[in-house]
Amino acid sequence: MADAKKPKLGDNDATLFDQLFPQLVTELTEDGLANDQTVDAIQWMKKSLECNVPGGKRNRGLSVIATARLLVAPQELSDEDIKGALILGWCVEFLQAFFLVADDIMDDSVTRRGQPCWFRNPEIGTIAINDSFMIESCIYKLLKKYFRSQPYYADLLDLMHETTYDTEVGQTLDLITAPSYVDFSRFSIERYRAIVKYKTAIYSFYLPVALAMTMTKNNSEVDYQDARQVLMQMGEYFQIQDDFLDCFGDPKITGKIGTDIEDNKCSWLVVQALSIASEEQKKVLQDNYAKNDQVAVQKVKDLYNELNLKQRYNDYEEQSYTTLSEGINKIANQDLAKALHVFAKRIYKRKA
Amino acid sequence: MADAKKPKLGDNDATLFDQLFPQLVTELTEDGLANDQTVDAIQWMKKSLECNVPGGKRNRGLSVIATARLLVAPQELSDEDIKGALILGWCVEFLQAFFLVADDIMDDSVTRRGQPCWFRNPEIGTIAINDSFMIESCIYKLLKKYFRSQPYYADLLDLMHETTYDTEVGQTLDLITAPSYVDFSRFSIERYRAIVKYKTAIYSFYLPVALAMTMTKNNSEVDYQDARQVLMQMGEYFQIQDDFLDCFGDPKITGKIGTDIEDNKCSWLVVQALSIASEEQKKVLQDNYAKNDQVAVQKVKDLYNELNLKQRYNDYEEQSYTTLSEGINKIANQDLAKALHVFAKRIYKRKA
Repeated sequence: MADAKKPKLGDNDATLFDQLFPQLVTELTEDGLANDQTVDAIQWMKKSLECNVPGGKRNRGLSVIATARLLVAPQELSDEDIKGALILGWCVEFLQAFFLVADDIMDDSVTRRGQPCWFRNPEIGTIAINDSFMIESCIYKLLKKYFRSQPYYADLLDLMHETTYDTEVGQTLDLITAPSYVDFSRFSIERYRAIVKYKTAIYSFYLPVALAMTMTKNNSEVDYQDARQVLMQMGEYFQIQDDFLDCFGDPKITGKIGTDIEDNKCSWLVVQALSIASEEQKKVLQDNYAKNDQVAVQKVKDLYNELNLKQRYNDYEEQSYTTLSEGINKIANQDLAKALHVFAKRIYKRKA
Repeated sequence: MADAKKPKLGDNDATLFDQLFPQLVTELTEDGLANDQTVDAIQWMKKSLECNVPGGKRNRGLSVIATARLLVAPQELSDEDIKGALILGWCVEFLQAFFLVADDIMDDSVTRRGQPCWFRNPEIGTIAINDSFMIESCIYKLLKKYFRSQPYYADLLDLMHETTYDTEVGQTLDLITAPSYVDFSRFSIERYRAIVKYKTAIYSFYLPVALAMTMTKNNSEVDYQDARQVLMQMGEYFQIQDDFLDCFGDPKITGKIGTDIEDNKCSWLVVQALSIASEEQKKVLQDNYAKNDQVAVQKVKDLYNELNLKQRYNDYEEQSYTTLSEGINKIANQDLAKALHVFAKRIYKRKA
């Protein structure tokens, strides 16, 4: 009987997901490329979609189909449902690309996914702003094409709009909290948690699950609230892991070299350090944070070690996982609870 | 009987419209300002809304209520309908503000509505990109709040999404057609018309009328197509007038001093000039266009006079108005045709 619950095609989802992208680009551009008046603009957009939407880890996009498979018995999930979940997954990836293209301009970033940021291409520059708008618009073209006739179409649109707004609130908080100069008075754990919640957790954790819930339909308002509460917490936990791995992770496993210290990031580590440091230790932070200088970075890391932040992180991780599990256990909808347990286990003690 | 058709409160619509804005801002911000976590971000957004959304001529926004009054007999237009039309009008103004805040960055503009462009404020800079996103998001917060329970809610969202996408296509065309250097090979009347249609006419002319049609409900698919065809043409006519007035209008009447020549704009005038100029005259244009220099600007204007562009414009205006009127006369829906005639007459031979 356990086998009957095994998702059909599940092992293949990442491949199906990747294969769908070029088809979606074709559908999104075919009208415009056939129109003499718009062909140049659509050609431009096509290149922007191909360069900016794929190429990430696509964890968020794949979460939609993963959730759908956990919420619905395999025999009840039609091929059309699977395609729907894959498309909604791509909508999340489009939403992320919309944010990232714009965030890179606002953060004056240099590279993204191993390439120069889109706006850094000399022929692009600030046109990237309009390109980010068009990536967002493609979400609504896809939703209309595939979900217009569904009774939950307006729910999908509302969910996407609300998530977009919340993420923008988070981006505002982030931008006004971390200006280009060091000002630790703006860093606090409450502000840190608000930024993570609004800027990252909602679109990365709640959105994919809520989209799958909406598509698979058998959910009440309470289920959405339950899922949201747990997934916000999961998103915060994930971001704190990210901040920890940025400093203490093994680049061979994480695949990247962290630069949060150099970049003046309101990271969990610096917030913790500031909350327990002596005046003398705060001065070390003040003098060495946000400097693009390996000696300064090492002094910050030494201070983090002196303050036992690794232990503090381990304690946080244990406590957070326990709280998460308890929260999930309280959820009445058993299918939803099972799905959330799977996600929680997947990120517990991750190294990459 | 003619009096019975006179719109109630119509004379007062601009005042009602203006009075509604602060109330909408209060509604859009009240949740966030009461929330400790988001108060800073929402305070920031509030300022952005107040600085960027009002202050224009609000022709687009007022067109929604004007259309509703022309489409529906006054006794059938409830106070709730009037408020609905005013809110949809503000949605058009929010959409415009979303575009303008971003366009000013992409065009590297200096002033807007007599003030420095939003992004020029030193504490704002590229945060203006996120501010433009938030202005867009407010549209969907307003639509959800006021129209979620209406059967045409999804139609309103689709219309807004499609208009947004089309305008972005137009902005792409505009940006890739007019780079920072003079390249007349990119200017053609076909390209000019495509830019005007996508970038301006759809959201400025079709959208307000289509919103009013959707809200007042008694319209068929054919009516939307009829309206769209006429309004696209009206939008093109309006933009050509704008280009003409930028060069030849009386600043005392238009209220602004044109700078299209200095700014290397793909204006109707330069496109006409290029289509009829001799090689020698083209060289004058090439040498003097896009220069911030009053002698050069005067040389371009002299050439426009030499080429009889004023006459060409008058001919265009006559012919365009005739075509417009004929198009409107063919429309089966008489209420719609009447409304479109009113709009056409309103802009015919305008001087400002």
